[in-house]
Amino acid sequence: MRLYDSTIPSGNAYKVRLLLAQLGITYDVTELDILATPSETRRPEFLAVNPNGRIPVLEFDDGRRLAESNAILYYLTEGTPLLSRDRFERAETLQWMFFEQYSHEPYVAVLKFWTYWGGLERVPPADLERWRQRGQQALEVMETHLGSRTFFVAESYGIADIALFAYTQSADAIGLRTGPALRAWLERVRDQPGYVPIKADPLGRVP
Amino acid sequence: MRLYDSTIPSGNAYKVRLLLAQLGITYDVTELDILATPSETRRPEFLAVNPNGRIPVLEFDDGRRLAESNAILYYLTEGTPLLSRDRFERAETLQWMFFEQYSHEPYVAVLKFWTYWGGLERVPPADLERWRQRGQQALEVMETHLGSRTFFVAESYGIADIALFAYTQSADAIGLRTGPALRAWLERVRDQPGYVPIKADPLGRVP
Repeated sequence: MRLYDSTIPSGNAYKVRLLLAQLGITYDVTELDILATPSETRRPEFLAVNPNGRIPVLEFDDGRRLAESNAILYYLTEGTPLLSRDRFERAETLQWMFFEQYSHEPYVAVLKFWTYWGGLERVPPADLERWRQRGQQALEVMETHLGSRTFFVAESYGIADIALFAYTQSADAIGLRTGPALRAWLERVRDQPGYVPIKADPLGRVP
Repeated sequence: MRLYDSTIPSGNAYKVRLLLAQLGITYDVTELDILATPSETRRPEFLAVNPNGRIPVLEFDDGRRLAESNAILYYLTEGTPLLSRDRFERAETLQWMFFEQYSHEPYVAVLKFWTYWGGLERVPPADLERWRQRGQQALEVMETHLGSRTFFVAESYGIADIALFAYTQSADAIGLRTGPALRAWLERVRDQPGYVPIKADPLGRVP
Protein backbone atom coordinates (compact mmCIF):
# COMPACT_ATOMS: atom_id res chain seq x y z
CA MET A 1 0.00 0.00 0.00
CA ARG A 2 0.97 3.64 -0.31
CA LEU A 3 0.73 6.36 2.35
CA TYR A 4 0.35 9.96 1.22
CA ASP A 5 2.14 12.01 3.90
CA SER A 6 3.59 15.53 4.11
CA THR A 7 7.27 16.51 4.04
CA ILE A 8 6.98 18.14 7.47
CA PRO A 9 5.92 15.67 10.16
CA SER A 10 2.13 15.38 10.37
CA GLY A 11 0.69 13.90 13.55
CA ASN A 12 -2.29 12.63 11.56
CA ALA A 13 -0.02 10.72 9.15
CA TYR A 14 2.13 9.57 12.07
CA LYS A 15 -0.90 7.79 13.56
CA VAL A 16 -1.02 5.61 10.43
CA ARG A 17 2.78 5.11 10.36
CA LEU A 18 2.81 4.04 14.02
CA LEU A 19 -0.05 1.61 13.50
CA LEU A 20 1.41 0.11 10.29
CA ALA A 21 4.73 -0.43 12.11
CA GLN A 22 2.95 -2.14 14.99
CA LEU A 23 0.98 -4.33 12.59
CA GLY A 24 4.20 -5.22 10.71
CA ILE A 25 2.85 -3.89 7.39
CA THR A 26 5.33 -2.37 4.93
CA TYR A 27 4.27 0.46 2.62
CA ASP A 28 5.48 3.06 0.14
CA VAL A 29 5.31 6.77 0.83
CA THR A 30 4.51 9.82 -1.30
CA GLU A 31 5.35 13.08 0.47
CA LEU A 32 3.63 16.37 -0.33
CA ASP A 33 4.97 19.83 0.47
CA ILE A 34 2.21 21.57 2.40
CA LEU A 35 4.38 24.68 2.88
CA ALA A 36 4.50 25.29 -0.90
CA THR A 37 2.21 27.93 -2.46
CA PRO A 38 -0.28 26.55 -3.20
CA SER A 39 0.14 23.53 -0.95
CA GLU A 40 0.85 20.41 -2.98
CA THR A 41 -2.23 18.88 -1.33
CA ARG A 42 -4.45 21.52 -3.00
CA ARG A 43 -3.21 20.95 -6.58
CA PRO A 44 -5.25 19.02 -9.18
CA GLU A 45 -2.99 15.94 -9.10
CA PHE A 46 -3.62 15.40 -5.40
CA LEU A 47 -7.26 16.53 -5.43
CA ALA A 48 -7.77 13.52 -7.74
CA VAL A 49 -6.48 11.39 -4.83
CA ASN A 50 -8.41 13.18 -2.06
CA PRO A 51 -10.97 15.81 -3.12
CA ASN A 52 -10.75 17.26 0.40
CA GLY A 53 -7.06 18.09 -0.20
CA ARG A 54 -5.64 16.63 3.01
CA ILE A 55 -3.13 13.99 3.99
CA PRO A 56 -2.97 11.25 5.17
CA VAL A 57 -4.51 9.06 2.50
CA LEU A 58 -3.90 5.32 2.40
CA GLU A 59 -4.01 3.78 -1.07
CA PHE A 60 -4.41 0.03 -1.38
CA ASP A 61 -2.87 -2.14 -4.06
CA ASP A 62 -6.24 -2.48 -5.82
CA GLY A 63 -6.42 1.32 -6.14
CA ARG A 64 -9.02 1.95 -3.44
CA ARG A 65 -8.25 4.85 -1.12
CA LEU A 66 -9.18 5.95 2.38
CA ALA A 67 -8.77 9.44 3.83
CA GLU A 68 -9.16 10.67 7.45
CA SER A 69 -6.54 9.28 9.80
CA ASN A 70 -8.95 7.88 12.36
CA ALA A 71 -11.08 6.11 9.73
CA ILE A 72 -7.87 4.52 8.45
CA LEU A 73 -6.93 3.36 11.96
CA TYR A 74 -10.37 1.81 12.45
CA TYR A 75 -10.27 0.03 9.10
CA LEU A 76 -6.83 -1.47 9.69
CA THR A 77 -7.58 -2.76 13.19
CA GLU A 78 -11.00 -4.41 12.91
CA GLY A 79 -10.40 -7.96 14.13
CA THR A 80 -7.04 -7.16 15.77
CA PRO A 81 -6.24 -6.68 19.50
CA LEU A 82 -5.92 -2.92 18.87
CA LEU A 83 -9.72 -2.57 18.51
CA SER A 84 -12.10 -4.18 20.96
CA ARG A 85 -14.58 -6.79 19.75
CA ASP A 86 -17.10 -5.42 22.24
CA ARG A 87 -19.66 -3.15 20.58
CA PHE A 88 -19.80 -0.57 23.38
CA GLU A 89 -16.01 -0.44 23.69
CA ARG A 90 -15.74 0.13 19.93
CA ALA A 91 -18.18 3.03 20.36
CA GLU A 92 -16.05 4.43 23.21
CA THR A 93 -13.03 4.19 20.91
CA LEU A 94 -14.88 6.21 18.28
CA GLN A 95 -16.02 8.68 20.94
CA TRP A 96 -12.38 9.43 21.85
CA MET A 97 -11.33 9.61 18.20
CA PHE A 98 -14.09 12.13 17.45
CA PHE A 99 -13.05 14.03 20.59
CA GLU A 100 -9.52 14.07 19.17
CA GLN A 101 -10.54 15.49 15.80
CA TYR A 102 -13.06 18.03 17.16
CA SER A 103 -11.87 19.19 20.59
CA HIS A 104 -8.13 18.41 20.58
CA GLU A 105 -6.40 18.39 17.17
CA PRO A 106 -7.82 21.71 15.88
CA TYR A 107 -6.09 23.43 18.83
CA VAL A 108 -3.06 21.28 19.70
CA ALA A 109 -2.03 20.53 16.09
CA VAL A 110 -2.52 24.14 15.02
CA LEU A 111 -0.44 25.41 17.96
CA LYS A 112 2.25 22.92 16.97
CA PHE A 113 2.15 24.11 13.36
CA TRP A 114 2.39 27.78 14.38
CA THR A 115 5.27 27.01 16.76
CA TYR A 116 7.46 25.09 14.31
CA TRP A 117 6.50 26.15 10.79
CA GLY A 118 3.82 28.82 10.74
CA GLY A 119 5.16 32.05 12.26
CA LEU A 120 3.87 32.00 15.83
CA GLU A 121 4.89 35.67 16.16
CA ARG A 122 2.36 36.70 13.51
CA VAL A 123 -0.64 35.01 15.18
CA PRO A 124 -3.03 37.59 16.72
CA PRO A 125 -2.62 37.39 20.54
CA ALA A 126 -6.35 36.84 21.07
CA ASP A 127 -6.30 33.85 18.70
CA LEU A 128 -3.19 32.43 20.36
CA GLU A 129 -4.80 32.73 23.79
CA ARG A 130 -8.01 31.07 22.60
CA TRP A 131 -6.17 28.19 20.93
CA ARG A 132 -4.02 27.65 24.05
CA GLN A 133 -7.06 27.68 26.30
CA ARG A 134 -8.97 25.17 24.19
CA GLY A 135 -5.93 22.93 23.73
CA GLN A 136 -5.37 22.98 27.48
CA GLN A 137 -9.04 22.17 28.10
CA ALA A 138 -8.71 19.04 25.92
CA LEU A 139 -5.62 17.97 27.88
CA GLU A 140 -7.52 18.44 31.16
CA VAL A 141 -10.31 16.15 29.93
CA MET A 142 -7.66 13.53 29.09
CA GLU A 143 -5.85 13.99 32.42
CA THR A 144 -9.08 13.43 34.35
CA HIS A 145 -9.96 10.32 32.34
CA LEU A 146 -6.48 8.84 32.73
CA GLY A 147 -6.40 9.56 36.47
CA SER A 148 -7.96 6.15 37.08
CA ARG A 149 -6.99 4.31 33.88
CA THR A 150 -3.94 3.02 32.01
CA PHE A 151 -5.35 3.47 28.49
CA PHE A 152 -8.34 5.31 27.03
CA VAL A 153 -10.66 2.34 26.49
CA ALA A 154 -11.04 -0.97 28.31
CA GLU A 155 -7.59 -0.80 30.00
CA SER A 156 -6.01 -1.96 26.76
CA TYR A 157 -3.73 -0.11 24.31
CA GLY A 158 -5.58 0.61 21.09
CA ILE A 159 -6.31 3.08 18.34
CA ALA A 160 -7.88 5.70 20.64
CA ASP A 161 -4.45 5.87 22.32
CA ILE A 162 -2.65 6.11 18.98
CA ALA A 163 -5.00 8.89 17.81
CA LEU A 164 -4.55 10.92 21.00
CA PHE A 165 -0.80 10.28 21.37
CA ALA A 166 0.07 11.75 17.95
CA TYR A 167 -0.24 15.43 18.92
CA THR A 168 -0.31 15.17 22.73
CA GLN A 169 3.35 14.11 22.70
CA SER A 170 4.19 17.68 21.62
CA ALA A 171 2.13 19.41 24.32
CA ASP A 172 4.97 20.48 26.61
CA ALA A 173 7.13 21.62 23.67
CA ILE A 174 4.40 24.00 22.45
CA GLY A 175 3.59 25.62 25.78
CA LEU A 176 0.71 23.46 27.05
CA ARG A 177 0.80 21.75 30.43
CA THR A 178 0.60 17.98 30.94
CA GLY A 179 -0.32 16.38 34.26
CA PRO A 180 1.15 13.26 35.86
CA ALA A 181 -1.49 10.86 34.50
CA LEU A 182 -0.98 12.15 30.96
CA ARG A 183 2.81 11.91 31.21
CA ALA A 184 2.63 8.34 32.56
CA TRP A 185 0.28 7.40 29.69
CA LEU A 186 2.65 8.96 27.11
CA GLU A 187 5.39 6.70 28.52
CA ARG A 188 3.13 3.64 28.39
CA VAL A 189 2.43 4.32 24.71
CA ARG A 190 6.17 4.72 23.99
CA ASP A 191 6.75 1.36 25.71
CA GLN A 192 4.42 -0.57 23.38
CA PRO A 193 5.91 -3.30 21.15
CA GLY A 194 6.74 -1.98 17.70
CA TYR A 195 6.63 1.68 18.78
CA VAL A 196 8.29 4.06 16.32
CA PRO A 197 8.82 7.78 16.97
CA ILE A 198 7.46 10.53 14.73
CA LYS A 199 9.90 11.55 11.99
CA ALA A 200 12.05 14.69 12.36
CA ASP A 201 11.24 17.83 10.39
CA PRO A 202 13.61 19.09 7.62
CA LEU A 203 15.63 20.96 10.28
CA GLY A 204 16.19 17.73 12.21
CA ARG A 205 13.77 18.66 15.00
CA VAL A 206 11.50 15.99 16.50
CA PRO A 207 8.48 17.91 17.69
CA MET B 1 -32.65 5.84 27.14
CA ARG B 2 -32.12 9.56 27.69
CA LEU B 3 -30.79 12.11 25.22
CA TYR B 4 -29.04 15.20 26.54
CA ASP B 5 -29.83 17.94 24.02
CA SER B 6 -29.78 21.76 24.05
CA THR B 7 -32.78 24.11 24.23
CA ILE B 8 -31.82 25.69 20.90
CA PRO B 9 -31.79 23.17 18.03
CA SER B 10 -28.42 21.43 17.77
CA GLY B 11 -27.62 19.70 14.49
CA ASN B 12 -25.43 17.24 16.36
CA ALA B 13 -28.30 16.25 18.69
CA TYR B 14 -30.70 16.21 15.73
CA LYS B 15 -28.59 13.47 14.10
CA VAL B 16 -29.37 11.24 17.08
CA ARG B 17 -33.05 12.28 17.17
CA LEU B 18 -33.47 11.52 13.45
CA LEU B 19 -31.80 8.14 13.78
CA LEU B 20 -33.77 7.15 16.90
CA ALA B 21 -37.00 8.08 15.10
CA GLN B 22 -36.00 5.97 12.10
CA LEU B 23 -35.10 3.04 14.34
CA GLY B 24 -38.42 3.39 16.20
CA ILE B 25 -36.69 3.87 19.57
CA THR B 26 -38.41 6.07 22.15
CA TYR B 27 -36.37 8.11 24.61
CA ASP B 28 -36.49 10.81 27.28
CA VAL B 29 -34.85 14.20 26.81
CA THR B 30 -32.93 16.55 29.10
CA GLU B 31 -32.42 19.98 27.55
CA LEU B 32 -29.55 22.26 28.54
CA ASP B 33 -29.38 26.02 27.97
CA ILE B 34 -26.14 26.64 26.11
CA LEU B 35 -26.92 30.38 25.84
CA ALA B 36 -26.83 30.75 29.66
CA THR B 37 -23.70 32.18 31.34
CA PRO B 38 -21.96 29.89 31.96
CA SER B 39 -23.51 27.42 29.54
CA GLU B 40 -25.42 24.72 31.39
CA THR B 41 -23.17 22.20 29.60
CA ARG B 42 -20.15 23.64 31.42
CA ARG B 43 -21.55 23.38 34.96
CA PRO B 44 -20.46 20.68 37.41
CA GLU B 45 -23.75 18.74 37.17
CA PHE B 46 -23.32 18.22 33.44
CA LEU B 47 -19.55 17.81 33.49
CA ALA B 48 -20.29 14.72 35.60
CA VAL B 49 -22.27 13.44 32.60
CA ASN B 50 -19.76 14.49 29.91
CA PRO B 51 -16.39 15.83 31.11
CA ASN B 52 -15.97 17.46 27.69
CA GLY B 53 -19.02 19.65 28.38
CA ARG B 54 -20.88 19.06 25.12
CA ILE B 55 -24.21 17.70 23.99
CA PRO B 56 -25.43 15.30 22.64
CA VAL B 57 -24.91 12.53 25.16
CA LEU B 58 -26.95 9.34 25.03
CA GLU B 59 -27.49 7.67 28.40
CA PHE B 60 -28.60 4.05 28.46
CA ASP B 61 -30.92 2.51 31.03
CA ASP B 62 -27.97 0.75 32.70
CA GLY B 63 -26.30 4.14 33.29
CA ARG B 64 -23.64 3.88 30.59
CA ARG B 65 -23.17 6.98 28.46
CA LEU B 66 -21.84 7.84 25.03
CA ALA B 67 -20.82 11.29 23.80
CA GLU B 68 -19.94 12.49 20.26
CA SER B 69 -22.86 12.40 17.86
CA ASN B 70 -21.17 10.30 15.19
CA ALA B 71 -19.94 7.68 17.67
CA ILE B 72 -23.54 7.41 18.91
CA LEU B 73 -24.81 6.93 15.33
CA TYR B 74 -22.26 4.19 14.70
CA TYR B 75 -23.10 2.40 17.94
CA LEU B 76 -26.84 2.41 17.31
CA THR B 77 -26.61 1.13 13.73
CA GLU B 78 -24.12 -1.75 13.87
CA GLY B 79 -26.05 -4.69 12.44
CA THR B 80 -28.79 -2.53 10.89
CA PRO B 81 -29.32 -1.54 7.21
CA LEU B 82 -28.13 1.99 8.07
CA LEU B 83 -24.50 0.81 8.42
CA SER B 84 -22.91 -1.48 5.84
CA ARG B 85 -21.68 -4.92 6.86
CA ASP B 86 -18.78 -4.50 4.41
CA ARG B 87 -15.56 -3.52 6.17
CA PHE B 88 -14.38 -1.03 3.54
CA GLU B 89 -17.82 0.59 3.28
CA ARG B 90 -17.88 0.99 7.07
CA ALA B 91 -14.50 2.71 6.80
CA GLU B 92 -15.85 5.01 4.06
CA THR B 93 -18.76 5.83 6.38
CA LEU B 94 -16.32 6.80 9.11
CA GLN B 95 -14.24 8.79 6.60
CA TRP B 96 -17.28 10.94 5.77
CA MET B 97 -18.22 11.29 9.44
CA PHE B 98 -14.70 12.49 10.32
CA PHE B 99 -14.87 14.84 7.30
CA GLU B 100 -18.11 16.18 8.77
CA GLN B 101 -16.65 16.86 12.20
CA TYR B 102 -13.32 18.28 10.98
CA SER B 103 -13.92 20.04 7.65
CA HIS B 104 -17.67 20.80 7.66
CA GLU B 105 -19.31 21.23 11.07
CA PRO B 106 -16.70 23.65 12.53
CA TYR B 107 -17.58 26.10 9.74
CA VAL B 108 -21.21 25.38 8.77
CA ALA B 109 -22.49 24.87 12.33
CA VAL B 110 -20.63 27.93 13.63
CA LEU B 111 -22.01 30.10 10.79
CA LYS B 112 -25.48 28.81 11.66
CA PHE B 113 -24.96 29.63 15.33
CA TRP B 114 -23.73 33.15 14.54
CA THR B 115 -26.64 33.73 12.15
CA TYR B 116 -29.43 32.68 14.50
CA TRP B 117 -28.20 33.05 18.08
CA GLY B 118 -24.69 34.44 18.25
CA GLY B 119 -24.63 37.99 16.95
CA LEU B 120 -23.39 37.69 13.37
CA GLU B 121 -22.87 41.47 13.28
CA ARG B 122 -20.18 41.26 15.97
CA VAL B 123 -18.06 38.63 14.17
CA PRO B 124 -14.84 40.16 12.76
CA PRO B 125 -15.24 40.36 8.94
CA ALA B 126 -12.02 38.43 8.32
CA ASP B 127 -13.29 35.56 10.52
CA LEU B 128 -16.68 35.57 8.80
CA GLU B 129 -15.04 35.45 5.38
CA ARG B 130 -12.75 32.57 6.43
CA TRP B 131 -15.61 30.56 7.94
CA ARG B 132 -17.76 31.11 4.81
CA GLN B 133 -14.91 30.07 2.53
CA ARG B 134 -14.19 26.88 4.46
CA GLY B 135 -17.87 26.00 4.82
CA GLN B 136 -18.33 26.51 1.08
CA GLN B 137 -15.26 24.33 0.38
CA ALA B 138 -16.81 21.48 2.36
CA LEU B 139 -20.06 21.83 0.37
CA GLU B 140 -18.08 21.72 -2.90
CA VAL B 141 -16.44 18.43 -1.84
CA MET B 142 -19.91 17.04 -1.12
CA GLU B 143 -21.35 18.37 -4.41
CA THR B 144 -18.57 16.69 -6.42
CA HIS B 145 -19.01 13.38 -4.60
CA LEU B 146 -22.81 13.42 -5.03
CA GLY B 147 -22.52 14.33 -8.72
CA SER B 148 -22.43 10.63 -9.55
CA ARG B 149 -24.10 9.12 -6.48
CA THR B 150 -27.43 9.02 -4.65
CA PHE B 151 -26.00 8.66 -1.12
CA PHE B 152 -22.54 9.09 0.41
CA VAL B 153 -21.59 5.41 0.74
CA ALA B 154 -22.54 2.33 -1.30
CA GLU B 155 -25.60 3.95 -2.94
CA SER B 156 -27.54 3.31 0.26
CA TYR B 157 -28.95 5.76 2.83
CA GLY B 158 -27.00 5.49 6.07
CA ILE B 159 -25.40 7.31 8.96
CA ALA B 160 -22.91 9.24 6.80
CA ASP B 161 -25.95 10.85 5.19
CA ILE B 162 -27.56 11.57 8.55
CA ALA B 163 -24.33 13.12 9.86
CA LEU B 164 -23.90 15.37 6.82
CA PHE B 165 -27.58 16.27 6.46
CA ALA B 166 -27.84 17.75 9.97
CA TYR B 167 -26.10 21.06 9.21
CA THR B 168 -26.09 21.03 5.39
CA GLN B 169 -29.88 21.48 5.41
CA SER B 170 -29.27 25.05 6.71
CA ALA B 171 -26.64 25.98 4.10
CA ASP B 172 -28.80 28.23 1.91
CA ALA B 173 -30.39 29.94 4.93
CA ILE B 174 -26.97 30.98 6.28
CA GLY B 175 -25.52 32.36 3.05
CA LEU B 176 -23.72 29.32 1.63
CA ARG B 177 -24.43 27.98 -1.86
CA THR B 178 -25.71 24.47 -2.60
CA GLY B 179 -25.44 22.85 -6.03
CA PRO B 180 -28.03 20.66 -7.79
CA ALA B 181 -26.55 17.34 -6.63
CA LEU B 182 -26.55 18.50 -3.01
CA ARG B 183 -30.12 19.79 -3.23
CA ALA B 184 -31.34 16.53 -4.80
CA TRP B 185 -29.60 14.57 -2.02
CA LEU B 186 -31.20 16.77 0.68
CA GLU B 187 -34.60 15.87 -0.83
CA ARG B 188 -33.72 12.16 -0.93
CA VAL B 189 -32.87 12.29 2.79
CA ARG B 190 -36.15 14.07 3.59
CA ASP B 191 -37.99 11.33 1.66
CA GLN B 192 -36.63 8.51 3.83
CA PRO B 193 -39.10 6.45 5.91
CA GLY B 194 -39.37 7.77 9.45
CA TYR B 195 -37.84 11.15 8.60
CA VAL B 196 -38.45 13.84 11.23
CA PRO B 197 -37.47 17.51 10.82
CA ILE B 198 -35.17 19.35 13.21
CA LYS B 199 -37.05 21.09 16.02
CA ALA B 200 -37.79 24.81 15.88
CA ASP B 201 -35.83 27.27 18.02
CA PRO B 202 -37.53 29.19 20.89
CA LEU B 203 -38.63 31.87 18.39
CA GLY B 204 -40.37 29.23 16.26
CA ARG B 205 -37.77 29.31 13.50
CA VAL B 206 -36.74 26.05 11.82
CA PRO B 207 -33.19 26.66 10.68
